[in-house]
Amino acid sequence: MNQPPVSRATMGRLPLYLRYLQSIRDHAENTSAAALSRALGLGKVQVRKDLNAVSGAGRPKIGYNTAELIDDIAAYLAADSDSGGVILVGAGKLGRALLDYGGFRDYGLDIDAAFDIAVAEPCESQSGKPIYPMDDLDWYCRTHPPVIGILTVPASAAQNACNTLIAHGVRGIWCFAPCTLSVPDDFPVRYENMALSLAYLRKKI
Amino acid sequence: MNQPPVSRATMGRLPLYLRYLQSIRDHAENTSAAALSRALGLGKVQVRKDLNAVSGAGRPKIGYNTAELIDDIAAYLAADSDSGGVILVGAGKLGRALLDYGGFRDYGLDIDAAFDIAVAEPCESQSGKPIYPMDDLDWYCRTHPPVIGILTVPASAAQNACNTLIAHGVRGIWCFAPCTLSVPDDFPVRYENMALSLAYLRKKI
Repeated sequence: MNQPPVSRATMGRLPLYLRYLQSIRDHAENTSAAALSRALGLGKVQVRKDLNAVSGAGRPKIGYNTAELIDDIAAYLAADSDSGGVILVGAGKLGRALLDYGGFRDYGLDIDAAFDIAVAEPCESQSGKPIYPMDDLDWYCRTHPPVIGILTVPASAAQNACNTLIAHGVRGIWCFAPCTLSVPDDFPVRYENMALSLAYLRKKI
Repeated sequence: MNQPPVSRATMGRLPLYLRYLQSIRDHAENTSAAALSRALGLGKVQVRKDLNAVSGAGRPKIGYNTAELIDDIAAYLAADSDSGGVILVGAGKLGRALLDYGGFRDYGLDIDAAFDIAVAEPCESQSGKPIYPMDDLDWYCRTHPPVIGILTVPASAAQNACNTLIAHGVRGIWCFAPCTLSVPDDFPVRYENMALSLAYLRKKI
């Protein structure tokens, strides 16, 4: 899969296409941008652009082969999921909510395990995901190399946890702690500040 | 408080200024953009711009009166908190994590109550917030007019819940369901798609 970069907006719509296509696959061998546009309430140009970014299944006058399009979108979404795992540090309320959140699977992703300094013995989240003591991180990462680390620790613990994750091979961080991390140049970090999001919405009213 | 609109980036830094200023207030009657810039690792021009957006406490050659600046930032952050509440619909894992999340208080906000269709009798979250049956929403909103509604329901239930919230006076919605809501023109909705955020970070690696 050597596709050009796909925008965040396009990626947001891919699961919609996928679910709809799966619902029609048994009775529609082919489909068109116009049909998808009507069914999903999206612009036809947008649909065409979205699909062309991840699939070569479009044929002039015929449209898209439904099965091929499903395979291409699913392959794009799942593209990198077997090249390394996702782990989370900080199994408090937010950490556990993310750990047990099923929606990541829409994008072929899932959080594999969590680590917490306050956990003395390995245990399980409500949905059965493993939660390990922080000391087990080193052992775990040797057998399950992670690529993404999620930080749901307090701000005061975030930089330390970030350093540990990077030392263990993580190549991107999703940070829920309200702080700014020091990371190597061009190292991808996505910050999520829940409190700020709500405050900003409040001010817009 | 008739301040000009403050950017999301500035709002993100206000709690940092506030916490730092509170830590020095007992031994520093005045402070300066330069001192704040050094202490917080931010650009001096940025500090000055941030503070001038919410405070008139700056004086040429003297700098900022620490106590006055604290009051202005705190007042800005808390400005609208008593003009209506925040309620949440959908008290599943993510809903409860948000309900019990303490960080909103940095912005003078908090979630007052949650509602869930699967709750038969009023109960409490782990931190003691009330969770009511969905049928109690009407009664609750009459005595506690809400301004913001948070949707942590499945996508299939989101539009209905959104309509109910708007009918009960909510003027802004924070939507965690992976869907697009139909709302009146210019009605503020902030969408939060956790799965997409992780997927997008994954693709950037």
